[in-house]
Amino acid sequence: MKSLVHPDVLFPPEPGVRSIARALYKTVADLPIVSPHGHTDPRWYALDEPFPDPAQLLIVPDHYIFRMLFSQGVALEDLGVRRQDGSPVEMDGRRIWKRFAENYHLFRGTPTRLWMDYVLSNLFDIEEPLDARTADSSYDRIAEKLRQPEYRPRALFKRFNIEVIATTEGALDDLRWHRMIRDSGWDGRVVTAYRPDAVVDPDFEGFSANLDQLGDISGEDTGSWSGYLAAHRNRRAYFKSFGATSSDHGHATADTANLSPSEASALFDKVRNGTADADGRRLFRAQMLTEMAKMSLDDGLVMQIHPGSWRSHSPSIMARHGRDMGFDIPTRTDYVKALKPLLDAVGLEPNLTVVLFTLDETSYARELAPLAGVYPALRLGPAWWFHDSPEGMRRFREMTTETAGFYNTVGFNDDTRAFPSIPARHDVSRRVDCAFLARLVAEHRLQEEEAFSLARELAYTLAKEAYRL
Amino acid sequence: MKSLVHPDVLFPPEPGVRSIARALYKTVADLPIVSPHGHTDPRWYALDEPFPDPAQLLIVPDHYIFRMLFSQGVALEDLGVRRQDGSPVEMDGRRIWKRFAENYHLFRGTPTRLWMDYVLSNLFDIEEPLDARTADSSYDRIAEKLRQPEYRPRALFKRFNIEVIATTEGALDDLRWHRMIRDSGWDGRVVTAYRPDAVVDPDFEGFSANLDQLGDISGEDTGSWSGYLAAHRNRRAYFKSFGATSSDHGHATADTANLSPSEASALFDKVRNGTADADGRRLFRAQMLTEMAKMSLDDGLVMQIHPGSWRSHSPSIMARHGRDMGFDIPTRTDYVKALKPLLDAVGLEPNLTVVLFTLDETSYARELAPLAGVYPALRLGPAWWFHDSPEGMRRFREMTTETAGFYNTVGFNDDTRAFPSIPARHDVSRRVDCAFLARLVAEHRLQEEEAFSLARELAYTLAKEAYRL
Amino acid sequence: MKSLVHPDVLFPPEPGVRSIARALYKTVADLPIVSPHGHTDPRWYALDEPFPDPAQLLIVPDHYIFRMLFSQGVALEDLGVRRQDGSPVEMDGRRIWKRFAENYHLFRGTPTRLWMDYVLSNLFDIEEPLDARTADSSYDRIAEKLRQPEYRPRALFKRFNIEVIATTEGALDDLRWHRMIRDSGWDGRVVTAYRPDAVVDPDFEGFSANLDQLGDISGEDTGSWSGYLAAHRNRRAYFKSFGATSSDHGHATADTANLSPSEASALFDKVRNGTADADGRRLFRAQMLTEMAKMSLDDGLVMQIHPGSWRSHSPSIMARHGRDMGFDIPTRTDYVKALKPLLDAVGLEPNLTVVLFTLDETSYARELAPLAGVYPALRLGPAWWFHDSPEGMRRFREMTTETAGFYNTVGFNDDTRAFPSIPARHDVSRRVDCAFLARLVAEHRLQEEEAFSLARELAYTLAKEAYRL
Repeated sequence: MKSLVHPDVLFPPEPGVRSIARALYKTVADLPIVSPHGHTDPRWYALDEPFPDPAQLLIVPDHYIFRMLFSQGVALEDLGVRRQDGSPVEMDGRRIWKRFAENYHLFRGTPTRLWMDYVLSNLFDIEEPLDARTADSSYDRIAEKLRQPEYRPRALFKRFNIEVIATTEGALDDLRWHRMIRDSGWDGRVVTAYRPDAVVDPDFEGFSANLDQLGDISGEDTGSWSGYLAAHRNRRAYFKSFGATSSDHGHATADTANLSPSEASALFDKVRNGTADADGRRLFRAQMLTEMAKMSLDDGLVMQIHPGSWRSHSPSIMARHGRDMGFDIPTRTDYVKALKPLLDAVGLEPNLTVVLFTLDETSYARELAPLAGVYPALRLGPAWWFHDSPEGMRRFREMTTETAGFYNTVGFNDDTRAFPSIPARHDVSRRVDCAFLARLVAEHRLQEEEAFSLARELAYTLAKEAYRL
Repeated sequence: MKSLVHPDVLFPPEPGVRSIARALYKTVADLPIVSPHGHTDPRWYALDEPFPDPAQLLIVPDHYIFRMLFSQGVALEDLGVRRQDGSPVEMDGRRIWKRFAENYHLFRGTPTRLWMDYVLSNLFDIEEPLDARTADSSYDRIAEKLRQPEYRPRALFKRFNIEVIATTEGALDDLRWHRMIRDSGWDGRVVTAYRPDAVVDPDFEGFSANLDQLGDISGEDTGSWSGYLAAHRNRRAYFKSFGATSSDHGHATADTANLSPSEASALFDKVRNGTADADGRRLFRAQMLTEMAKMSLDDGLVMQIHPGSWRSHSPSIMARHGRDMGFDIPTRTDYVKALKPLLDAVGLEPNLTVVLFTLDETSYARELAPLAGVYPALRLGPAWWFHDSPEGMRRFREMTTETAGFYNTVGFNDDTRAFPSIPARHDVSRRVDCAFLARLVAEHRLQEEEAFSLARELAYTLAKEAYRL
Repeated sequence: MKSLVHPDVLFPPEPGVRSIARALYKTVADLPIVSPHGHTDPRWYALDEPFPDPAQLLIVPDHYIFRMLFSQGVALEDLGVRRQDGSPVEMDGRRIWKRFAENYHLFRGTPTRLWMDYVLSNLFDIEEPLDARTADSSYDRIAEKLRQPEYRPRALFKRFNIEVIATTEGALDDLRWHRMIRDSGWDGRVVTAYRPDAVVDPDFEGFSANLDQLGDISGEDTGSWSGYLAAHRNRRAYFKSFGATSSDHGHATADTANLSPSEASALFDKVRNGTADADGRRLFRAQMLTEMAKMSLDDGLVMQIHPGSWRSHSPSIMARHGRDMGFDIPTRTDYVKALKPLLDAVGLEPNLTVVLFTLDETSYARELAPLAGVYPALRLGPAWWFHDSPEGMRRFREMTTETAGFYNTVGFNDDTRAFPSIPARHDVSRRVDCAFLARLVAEHRLQEEEAFSLARELAYTLAKEAYRL
């Protein structure tokens, strides 16, 4: 029977190159998954409850899916996406699944199609193409599987061969699920990561109250600059005690600043009492990136900067459905000037690791590779978000390798909340990297034995080492 | 005999991929041409007179050709390009043709070369490569053909298998040629499109007089904001009565605005009496894009935005030869911020279609695909102008498909005034799309049967549907 | 024995395309090298002394090499890079070489790897891959060769089959080494190029003293605008007398200006007496590009503009080691607006040649190809600096050819101070161009005989003609 996923998917068509790619892939296909950055819910691993129905698992939370359907006229409510005002939305998983299935052709040529086919095929043993005709049978098959113990989170974690996975929690999170995981004695390795946006960005909803709470849980006085910094140090240590090896920062730009302590303290006072203007608030965010980098120098957390997304571009959608509804749009992002204050302060430190991401591919060859190719503190994160796709990953390698090499990159991030798709995403990444390496070998730019080393490093070793996992 | 155009032109060299591309192409090669946006002269179809000599048909009006020759030192006058001051220019078609022929090597690697070889071969049965040696014989051959009735506009229209073609007329145009076509009883389908730049852009030459004229022909009072809007509605309805299904907007940027009616009215008054400053004039253009989108919601015209060209970059050339002399140069263009006011107003409307074009390829993956991949009102126009070329079209697919899919694109636009090249341009587009699809099939990212559906949709169906033709 | 460099390196893997590429390459592989822009030291050719030890020749002066090693934690001092304060650095060539060798894997996928393997193999007959194990033997082999007369500069010049090479000297240089070369009667053709940054950029270190010195050596009064211009003319003529056919301009941006003589004179006065503010200094640099273009119209020097590098991004490195330490980072660069004053003044002159370079690949298809494809005075320089690599060169051809054609480009620049790598760099360029042409032939976009002409033109003829060599 024809499988949904061909064994040669994503390999170059030329037979000679394909056979090199196959050979490389064979050596990395079954390596354990190291997932140093992502958004799965630690509650899953803590409680180990069955996943809900197929639509709630695979459609409703996946913004790649509902944004595409919405772009073609399907209402978000009809896909089960809840409303802020509590109005009813579609709750029938089968009907949601069917709407998805009959529009599945919209995903032709997208990574969602590759991931979904992989999940249907490898996880649920479905081999018929998804469409209106097969919607019911696939729904039934998935629903049936999800009731089996082998499909609970911890069983899937083992099945997926995950060596370690990082979740991401806000600075105010009590990490109760991580505590529960630890206390349970389960041997799956789930670590957290420190994401302080809500207590770093003065424009974040509830910023002032967030700082009060930060004071409470850290036992520090967040009414002063020094107390505020101490509170961060306290929380970072707390996160480290739950395995965190990294922090993560989702700013609108890559702007950094390096004020004197007295300037920073005065700016903090304005931000704290709500009198800072837009420039002041922007400057504060910029300053905090440098502060975080300095703390990383002390406590060893790997710092990740994810800039350049215009969050919630549509105010109507924001009002109706809230954040993370597929309306985050990339914008042009500059790094060379923006990062200079941080780099002037700590960029030459070989013991610091700052991982840079971008949604603006024009920065790969022009800015990011030249910066990471010389500053010891910098590494390049993998192709991110909309670019986390076969063509996007290929462009990443083609535009960064010649200046930054492979060893200033950090392997793959699945960066997902879609747990079932994690093996699919790592598989796509491994295949695309093997295809790229195969081309270098076929063009005699790399020896075959070097490509075998690199395939393993890109799939496994670099992520472990760069993230200190 | 070796043909000027190889049957496998533009297909990938790898034999397996090539055979898929060939098979796909075979099913679309002879589909009718749907040309929803272009600049052919409706007078041709109205009068059906013979085309003039080869140079006047193929060289003198083609800015792709004379800009390249000019860049290498050939004077525009020597190519028959008329001067604003009426000074004499070369009128001898044969000499113009010869100058082109002896410089034909300059076009190696350009789409002009592909189009011209296709025209020489398919339309004029010429199989010898064009150069100084063959210039006379090809000139004679073409001139002879042009005297035959089979080479008149209407005969060529049928020969080209054009199902429908749109021309573009200014808002003040009386559409007399369209009327004549209609009245003639000829069954070729030629529709117009509404291009209001001259009455929307306060910096357009003669703007004030243009508005007076707009008032006259519409019977509305273009001295007031409400009358001015009514005049647009009137003209749009008039254009629709001649088959128009779209409007077209050629602004320098993609800026939009959404002022309150009273603000807009006050701004109009300033613009109308010539007291608006540069910012005000810019704001007015921005406001008018949103007004046009709102009118489209009512009357169903598909809105096309063609931003980002710095028109007539050289003032000397502008003074000597006027507009459209090959000196329009692309500039960096931003969409995410620029379109927000329009999108906030009408971006979520599934019954509106706004087709976005760009001359700045950096916006494909970063801005346009993410926007069109979520806003129901948005679609992506094909690779435009300088990017309407094999490599440009390939980049368009590679950089938009993974985020926007195929179904948020609208098929091909030939966008040309070069009537004889229309089949060549559609053929290049079909071949490049089939080559792209063939690669996806060969890499097992798409099933073969899906590729056959898509090939037809990209070549024919999407254009018809998106443009409501 | 397996060679370090495969005969098919950089050729496309598909056998049909590869055989075309091979055939094309065969006809250009042994063409003489024309090197119209570079940074080799004329002293080498003048004195013809043996090169120093392997590390001093191949590692210490190569910023591509030490920036990569530094990015991975190797101290510059340990690579023999001297310090501004005179502190001791590693002087033992063998230990430097060993550090490089044991980190050679860092260069996988980079052009440095291709160049170095070519040099080791073709120049030093080394066929074992470089690594910690082979470091000593390769060091010994190279050191032994460097002591032989066949490895002196003039012998290598002949061995490399260099027909002509341009060095680059500052406006204040007395060209003593060029004089010595000329007086020596040696028949190698080494010419200079006029690089006036130090007397054109008011922010250059020692600008005021530089202008005094310019006055002294030219015998002109650099206290006045007219005297200052005359001094430039004088120096340009002096450089021409040592074979210069070009000037070179390394500005931070591509900004140009075209002030009236009285405005320019007033601005000069402010700049001269140090009272010009940042805007004035920027405007002066912009004005000087246009002045240089006007002088080129008179004296025929080909003008090269190399904009867009943020020089010495790290102030710590600047303080510790000085300029040119690998910390020059590309920035976004605009041309369409920036060049307009210069182009308005002289852009239509067919006898002027201005060669444009960029570090911002986004400008290739959007700005540079459309500009060079119409302005007679403009030509496109090859892929530059970080983009002077297989993928970079391929992108250059893919993004410029369709709009500018091949004949508005100027062949290859090695642009290097790494003398031994010159044949390697030209070889990479020839191979990449042949691979590109082979694809066009295989896709039937070009006839094979045209590709043979183009291969020779891209490898040899265009550089000679564009640079008037």
